[in-house]
Amino acid sequence: MALSEFGLIQDYFADLDLGCAQVIKGVGDDCALLAAPKPGYQLALSTDTLIGGVHFPGQAPADCLAERALAVNLSDLNAMGAEPYAFTLAITLPTADADWLAGFARGLGKQALAYNIPLVGGDTTRGPLAINIHIVGQVPQGQALLRSGASVGDSIYVAGTLGDAAAALQLIKSGDLENSDAPYLLQRFYCPEIDFSLGAALRGIATSAIDVSDGLLADLSHILTASRVGAVINVDDLPQSPELLRVGGRQQALDWALGGGDDYRLCFTMAAKYANALSRQGFQIACIGHIVEGEGLRCQTANGETFPPARSGYLHF
Amino acid sequence: MALSEFGLIQDYFADLDLGCAQVIKGVGDDCALLAAPKPGYQLALSTDTLIGGVHFPGQAPADCLAERALAVNLSDLNAMGAEPYAFTLAITLPTADADWLAGFARGLGKQALAYNIPLVGGDTTRGPLAINIHIVGQVPQGQALLRSGASVGDSIYVAGTLGDAAAALQLIKSGDLENSDAPYLLQRFYCPEIDFSLGAALRGIATSAIDVSDGLLADLSHILTASRVGAVINVDDLPQSPELLRVGGRQQALDWALGGGDDYRLCFTMAAKYANALSRQGFQIACIGHIVEGEGLRCQTANGETFPPARSGYLHF
Repeated sequence: MALSEFGLIQDYFADLDLGCAQVIKGVGDDCALLAAPKPGYQLALSTDTLIGGVHFPGQAPADCLAERALAVNLSDLNAMGAEPYAFTLAITLPTADADWLAGFARGLGKQALAYNIPLVGGDTTRGPLAINIHIVGQVPQGQALLRSGASVGDSIYVAGTLGDAAAALQLIKSGDLENSDAPYLLQRFYCPEIDFSLGAALRGIATSAIDVSDGLLADLSHILTASRVGAVINVDDLPQSPELLRVGGRQQALDWALGGGDDYRLCFTMAAKYANALSRQGFQIACIGHIVEGEGLRCQTANGETFPPARSGYLHF
Repeated sequence: MALSEFGLIQDYFADLDLGCAQVIKGVGDDCALLAAPKPGYQLALSTDTLIGGVHFPGQAPADCLAERALAVNLSDLNAMGAEPYAFTLAITLPTADADWLAGFARGLGKQALAYNIPLVGGDTTRGPLAINIHIVGQVPQGQALLRSGASVGDSIYVAGTLGDAAAALQLIKSGDLENSDAPYLLQRFYCPEIDFSLGAALRGIATSAIDVSDGLLADLSHILTASRVGAVINVDDLPQSPELLRVGGRQQALDWALGGGDDYRLCFTMAAKYANALSRQGFQIACIGHIVEGEGLRCQTANGETFPPARSGYLHF
């Protein structure tokens, strides 16, 4: 099967601009053309790459990969309090496999529609499998959630549960896919849900935010460094799913919740007084610790004993 | 040498935002934050990936690669008549080689400064060498140069010379780097100059435009398809450098000029009456043919004989 770059893009991805009003010219020219964002809004830009065999198992289904690749990037927008606006896709493939491409386009289209974000451009190249997405969002001027605003006395929150994606990876590696908890955990790995209503609700309330991509300890450390503060985490308060606890047991589950990446949950800091209002709006958030003076991150148990984490997060090199 | 993703980006690329006014928050958070474009402007988005061993020789110098990777993307903006606004970089590396990274950052910084475009975000991953840039430009509303506006009777123009990059690749492949024409040709391959003053001058004048990345015949064909017209090219009018003609001889030079990619020259259509004014402004443009009814592309010599091209351009698959 021989396809030109042009043919590839046209055939599989041309109808993914969803007819969104901001798209003036989508896939098919040297650049895409987009309307400027709403008056009073700024642009938010991010990019993430998934490499076969590094960021996902080599034999992962194409539609799942597509969903995950877009979710990972959407998560970056959400962690800034930004709304989806458009994305471009650069994909590197060893061969032009029509079945794989059709599956990938199907997953991407499903996800793009769910979050109402148009695909406006792309580039296909031959080489080892890699999926790179560049995402554009819009955020009200001056209201973006940064990593740098955490203050001493703020409480630290996490939305949803932690560690599920790490448990899913373990099931995939060990081949234990018949496990009754596998469907839930694999779904959490391949298709993390991005809750843009939470990112929007945190604007003007949260003092800092980040998404948990490399592991709670690693990502929270980015907030601490940018904000020049320290933190104390109560490991017994980490929100964990029943599925995670059944698959891992208490000790392993805690390790996954602290150090496992790929959960794409929001971690944020704010004054504790806002927590009840957010809970009443239906957001599942858990207070896991607080910001202190100094630097570094200390983990402790419910009775105040220091808890030494097994690892500090995923390092790319 | 072990570096975290965070360390990599911070160490090598953090100061490449050039202090540009549009950058509100550059590298170092979940997203970059950019001011909205100027009032009355739209956004132009594009992405291009360079893979080691596919789009450049595996042993190419890191600074040259960086310059070329950015130039390739700048060229897409220029072909739309857009101005540089910001870019992000996703880079995949087999190892975190400090010398390579320093060279790459040096080349990227030089090029970013030359075109006054800030680097605002990035992602580093481990894997086979790949350089992916996503670029954002701004263009006055309704004035973007599209592929789809060529009309019967328009003349077809090329800026600068064609085929130089293909000749450079041949010199690299054959190891003939002592050739006295190698410095000029290699410079054309590694660091194509992008003339944004021409893209801007063509707004409101050119009926279509594209940059020559895959070869003149392949790229002009994109204009013809999008505009639903045909073209006649006079091969004896193709602009060729003396260096190209010395290295290739007439026949080979013509093949490179018609089918060789990587030149990143503008090819555009417009009414012939505008040509003199552009030439008086100092733009080196050559009329190479004209748009006709029907479809497809016919090459002919100065005396009107049909010229069969040796190849039709670079196909990615």
